[in-house]
Amino acid sequence: MRIDLNADLGESYGAWVLGDDEAMLDVVTSANVACGFHAGDPLTLRTTCRYAAERGVVVGAQISYRDVAGFGRRFIDMEPEELAAEVVYQLGALDAIARVEGTRVSYVKPHGALYNAVVHHEAQAEAVVRAVHAHDPSLPILGLPGGVLLDLALEAGIRTVSEAFADRGYTSEGRLVPRTQPGAVIHDPDVVAHRVLRLVTEGVVESVDGVDVEVRADSVCVHGDTPGAVTMARATRTLLVEAGVEIAPFV
Amino acid sequence: MRIDLNADLGESYGAWVLGDDEAMLDVVTSANVACGFHAGDPLTLRTTCRYAAERGVVVGAQISYRDVAGFGRRFIDMEPEELAAEVVYQLGALDAIARVEGTRVSYVKPHGALYNAVVHHEAQAEAVVRAVHAHDPSLPILGLPGGVLLDLALEAGIRTVSEAFADRGYTSEGRLVPRTQPGAVIHDPDVVAHRVLRLVTEGVVESVDGVDVEVRADSVCVHGDTPGAVTMARATRTLLVEAGVEIAPFV
Amino acid sequence: MRIDLNADLGESYGAWVLGDDEAMLDVVTSANVACGFHAGDPLTLRTTCRYAAERGVVVGAQISYRDVAGFGRRFIDMEPEELAAEVVYQLGALDAIARVEGTRVSYVKPHGALYNAVVHHEAQAEAVVRAVHAHDPSLPILGLPGGVLLDLALEAGIRTVSEAFADRGYTSEGRLVPRTQPGAVIHDPDVVAHRVLRLVTEGVVESVDGVDVEVRADSVCVHGDTPGAVTMARATRTLLVEAGVEIAPFV
Amino acid sequence: MRIDLNADLGESYGAWVLGDDEAMLDVVTSANVACGFHAGDPLTLRTTCRYAAERGVVVGAQISYRDVAGFGRRFIDMEPEELAAEVVYQLGALDAIARVEGTRVSYVKPHGALYNAVVHHEAQAEAVVRAVHAHDPSLPILGLPGGVLLDLALEAGIRTVSEAFADRGYTSEGRLVPRTQPGAVIHDPDVVAHRVLRLVTEGVVESVDGVDVEVRADSVCVHGDTPGAVTMARATRTLLVEAGVEIAPFV
Repeated sequence: MRIDLNADLGESYGAWVLGDDEAMLDVVTSANVACGFHAGDPLTLRTTCRYAAERGVVVGAQISYRDVAGFGRRFIDMEPEELAAEVVYQLGALDAIARVEGTRVSYVKPHGALYNAVVHHEAQAEAVVRAVHAHDPSLPILGLPGGVLLDLALEAGIRTVSEAFADRGYTSEGRLVPRTQPGAVIHDPDVVAHRVLRLVTEGVVESVDGVDVEVRADSVCVHGDTPGAVTMARATRTLLVEAGVEIAPFV
Repeated sequence: MRIDLNADLGESYGAWVLGDDEAMLDVVTSANVACGFHAGDPLTLRTTCRYAAERGVVVGAQISYRDVAGFGRRFIDMEPEELAAEVVYQLGALDAIARVEGTRVSYVKPHGALYNAVVHHEAQAEAVVRAVHAHDPSLPILGLPGGVLLDLALEAGIRTVSEAFADRGYTSEGRLVPRTQPGAVIHDPDVVAHRVLRLVTEGVVESVDGVDVEVRADSVCVHGDTPGAVTMARATRTLLVEAGVEIAPFV
Repeated sequence: MRIDLNADLGESYGAWVLGDDEAMLDVVTSANVACGFHAGDPLTLRTTCRYAAERGVVVGAQISYRDVAGFGRRFIDMEPEELAAEVVYQLGALDAIARVEGTRVSYVKPHGALYNAVVHHEAQAEAVVRAVHAHDPSLPILGLPGGVLLDLALEAGIRTVSEAFADRGYTSEGRLVPRTQPGAVIHDPDVVAHRVLRLVTEGVVESVDGVDVEVRADSVCVHGDTPGAVTMARATRTLLVEAGVEIAPFV
Repeated sequence: MRIDLNADLGESYGAWVLGDDEAMLDVVTSANVACGFHAGDPLTLRTTCRYAAERGVVVGAQISYRDVAGFGRRFIDMEPEELAAEVVYQLGALDAIARVEGTRVSYVKPHGALYNAVVHHEAQAEAVVRAVHAHDPSLPILGLPGGVLLDLALEAGIRTVSEAFADRGYTSEGRLVPRTQPGAVIHDPDVVAHRVLRLVTEGVVESVDGVDVEVRADSVCVHGDTPGAVTMARATRTLLVEAGVEIAPFV
């Protein structure tokens, strides 16, 4: 039994600090590092990559719409060609930063509104796949299983990695409960840790309706943007390790 | 007899067009392509790199302060560590864009206020050199001869390339006439072309005081941001070719 | 017979020049001046407002999504509360600029993707109306007749002003022909001028299907972002004046 | 005995939170609210202005260089004309935001690198004064006594307000100890509170060399960007109130 834990990191910006990257890099095995388009000034990215390299944590590129003011959380109806160019730009920028710190970009994960858009927006999903393929077809794409992005990536010969969310509720159809509905987010660290353990060892989570649903994931996303989130992530890792689960990167 | 011609390209931004990249890429052998920090949205950069690749023009990274509103023309008193990280970020971003278009970043040239600052600002010059060295020590740096940047680059084992300016006046000490003084800029295409020819074939230019001064350059910078500038660049190239000078990249 | 002519102005940005504001300010009676969110650095805005004040051209605020890279042409799915705050910010910024040049913001016109969105997007239209009302309920809103924005503005007690487009084709239902379809844009200055004359004097335009359709407009939008556009705008004004139409601002 | 307490507020940006504006607005009488150029998205500014209005705290415009990535802490060598236009833009933007929340901009305080520059940089200081004067000559300028900015403001007929810093060390000449030297910043809340009390009641502070030096201030700047800073600000206010000092805005 083996699982990867991933988290969004490198999301500070200039004078503004978000999350505790060092603490989280002791928990996760894959770091989705921002690329400067929604967060992550170059010096922050460099520091985060250095910390990741020191701990052997794999670096992935957390690509985004160009929207610092909106933290990449707002859908932007942009031309696929522009999006593709922006993705290549971000991949190259972060990869160069990572390499001067002794590591490299080893996978790609869309962020925020782009993450949600490419689950169903064919033109933007296709642009992301085309960009990753043109830049380095050996980079896996980490995303939500069942969406357009991973389907198109597979067609293009790109490895896909499915993720589940540690602190999110699931419907009985195995989908995430929308954030506007009750049960969308689980706040109890102990409950979260045990849900992740079942997901890893049995391949199921209990849905908001109390039904066990099958969820297949190669990686589990944990959050680290608040002190409480770091505590939850640590509790999850500890329980997995105690249960004999190997925590290891997917790449 | 052989010389490189370089020009600043890829300096459009979204809806705003600056210069005629295609026309200039028929004139120059080295393209200083913007990296998005003073100009050059990713799609513009991609298009410019494609045009350069099609013509066999070498691509260099025109690194800048992060200042789109000021077109990189304003000195920013930033921390060397931040500047170094931003330089690596820009080099990686443009290199990735260039590679998906079948070429690569082959040299580095600072832009605007950064270009002027690193002639004398030791901490910023050192930051640029450190960044280029960490990213790829085989990349030459193109700049003003006699400045701190090229001195520090040489010390670090980086190849340096000196440039002269086709349309700028020189003092009798071989320095550029400051833009605030008469004779700083030469506007007659024919005069410019003949000055460049003498510079290439004899290693001298006539100073504003009428004295021949020695100017050594491996590359001559021509401008292309106005229709008149393109005409001047073409005239210069034509005269050089007619005189039997080989126009070839320095890398 | 009387009509207002409006155009988008102040759309340069730093080193990038777009359009010929001085020329257009001799043609139009209302200037939709950018507010810095899609274009228009503060110095450009100040210069444009000065030129407008000198000519007695009325200044309006051309509010936009915050998207310099995309020139405000991309829909951004932002929270209404954020949009409302951004609209107030823009209105105040441009009004202060206008006042130091002896004029003021006298109306509001959404730009680009926001213009298109608020024709149907209720939450964003409502945010714009709320912002204008909170800032200054006496400011008219200029927009496309029949859309949600103008309906909500009227409900809120805000004066609305309908515009027609000089160089756009209309369907037989009186709507704009989508830009993706043939006949969307008319390029012949003479044809454009005569269409505007009929629109003003008869209240009709000939649709793409050759049918006369009624189009009511208090203002006609002309473009000035290319030399050809300026020529067309001049031709339109000249024909109107020759026909005895009074060209006057709607405020 | 009476003093104004001021603090920098509204410095969050999108997803990034900085400081506890509500807590600080219970301590200070004047709020230097960011204007969006170094911090402060429009929605943040609106919320901060609402909180200030609810508490009767006076709102000032904390104008800055346009440098979100550098939090306005880096000198930018910009043209005075551009700076003047940007200052007017900021003043108008924040004033409009303040007015929809029932208050208004009542004074001006430069931020960060601009604050430091205008102590000695004549051209930029003159640009700031010119901009404030053109926008509203009745707005006082808050700044460091003895600098060029306040001198030029006085000459222009603008009221000036001198400030002292609660947690900064002073030299025996009455100047701030540079941040690179020992004694520049005082961290003990109790020491800070008692220093401010002496400053208000006796007009002196003890210098780093142990000498009492005269410091005249109409306002004392307290910080609120960390939990410790909020504690220190509260302790200072409490001690002043207990000593019978009236805490009241200078406007």
